[in-house]
Amino acid sequence: MQTSPLLESLMESLRCLPGVGPKSAQRMAFQLLQRDRSGGMRLAQSLTRAMSEIGHCRDCRTFTEEEVCTICSNQRRQNSGQICVVESPADIHAIEQTGQFAGRYFVLMGHLSPLDGIGPNDIGLDRLEERLASEKVNEVILATNPTVEGDATANFIAEMCGMYGVMASRIAHGVPVGGELEMVDGTTLSHSLAGRQQIKF
Amino acid sequence: MQTSPLLESLMESLRCLPGVGPKSAQRMAFQLLQRDRSGGMRLAQSLTRAMSEIGHCRDCRTFTEEEVCTICSNQRRQNSGQICVVESPADIHAIEQTGQFAGRYFVLMGHLSPLDGIGPNDIGLDRLEERLASEKVNEVILATNPTVEGDATANFIAEMCGMYGVMASRIAHGVPVGGELEMVDGTTLSHSLAGRQQIKF
Repeated sequence: MQTSPLLESLMESLRCLPGVGPKSAQRMAFQLLQRDRSGGMRLAQSLTRAMSEIGHCRDCRTFTEEEVCTICSNQRRQNSGQICVVESPADIHAIEQTGQFAGRYFVLMGHLSPLDGIGPNDIGLDRLEERLASEKVNEVILATNPTVEGDATANFIAEMCGMYGVMASRIAHGVPVGGELEMVDGTTLSHSLAGRQQIKF
Repeated sequence: MQTSPLLESLMESLRCLPGVGPKSAQRMAFQLLQRDRSGGMRLAQSLTRAMSEIGHCRDCRTFTEEEVCTICSNQRRQNSGQICVVESPADIHAIEQTGQFAGRYFVLMGHLSPLDGIGPNDIGLDRLEERLASEKVNEVILATNPTVEGDATANFIAEMCGMYGVMASRIAHGVPVGGELEMVDGTTLSHSLAGRQQIKF
């Protein structure tokens, strides 16, 4: 027997979050009610605003509530002439944290997957083609995931870049830094051998 | 560099949930934005209603949006004359799932802790005393946690019950069903020996 329908519906709603099952949902609901009601209210407001106001950037398709995101509208980044193509907005976060890239991005929001009916226009390649045609782009860095679909998508975009005379490059795949060679799988090791670079003195 | 202040504030707010760090918050925010905006909106509504409308039951102090919760207002449960004292509303869920108890509850929302300044009235024992004095109660089952504080709280309430001529009982502590004896800690095993019961034929 339940004491509160509202509490039940809160637990049920919390389960839309990834990785949250019945037990975690219960723990979250009780924690908020017992100790952090103001946090719960703030979360509700953030959710409402984010779900209704966040759309996609006109230029790079990442999440933003503006028409053009802060990275795309940054003059210094526009001047760099580099576009890094990634599969999801989370990848932008990851790359930004390295502090190594000062160009702009293009977010596919997925990858080519003909079997699922996902073609070039579904991942925004028509928009990328417009940008290659209209903007001054020196290099397109392909940072899609190192999966079969990610590689296929990268090759497709590289061909497209070729048609516009833009250099395309693929990020290096190999042994992770700090990893141990004997723990690395064979495919990664093959990539790391094939992608070896001469040591220059 | 961030692309969206709203997205940032959503990630920050999600961290008020227990067990959610920066990485999980990011994953949750992207999942909701990419795949389940309607779920996110439902969650926001449930949160707003739950945080503002859920209070405590007048009789048992559990969470409810009514004045008296459905368990306390159930006539059959009132007739049983049993009150089970627990530390938190989550304990009610756990006991209800056994289907073994058909009485009512009393939720302390904590336990006695003199060092932290938590005395009898802070855990609602004045209200429990009123109930013992005014209602027909046959038995108070003490189901506080088997910790030092939980035991002390149980003893305190048992004494109070004695003053009103109400029988007080403590739930059994011992080897968990399905557990292995050699894995059980010494204190639990002592409890399980001290609480042994004669096998009757």
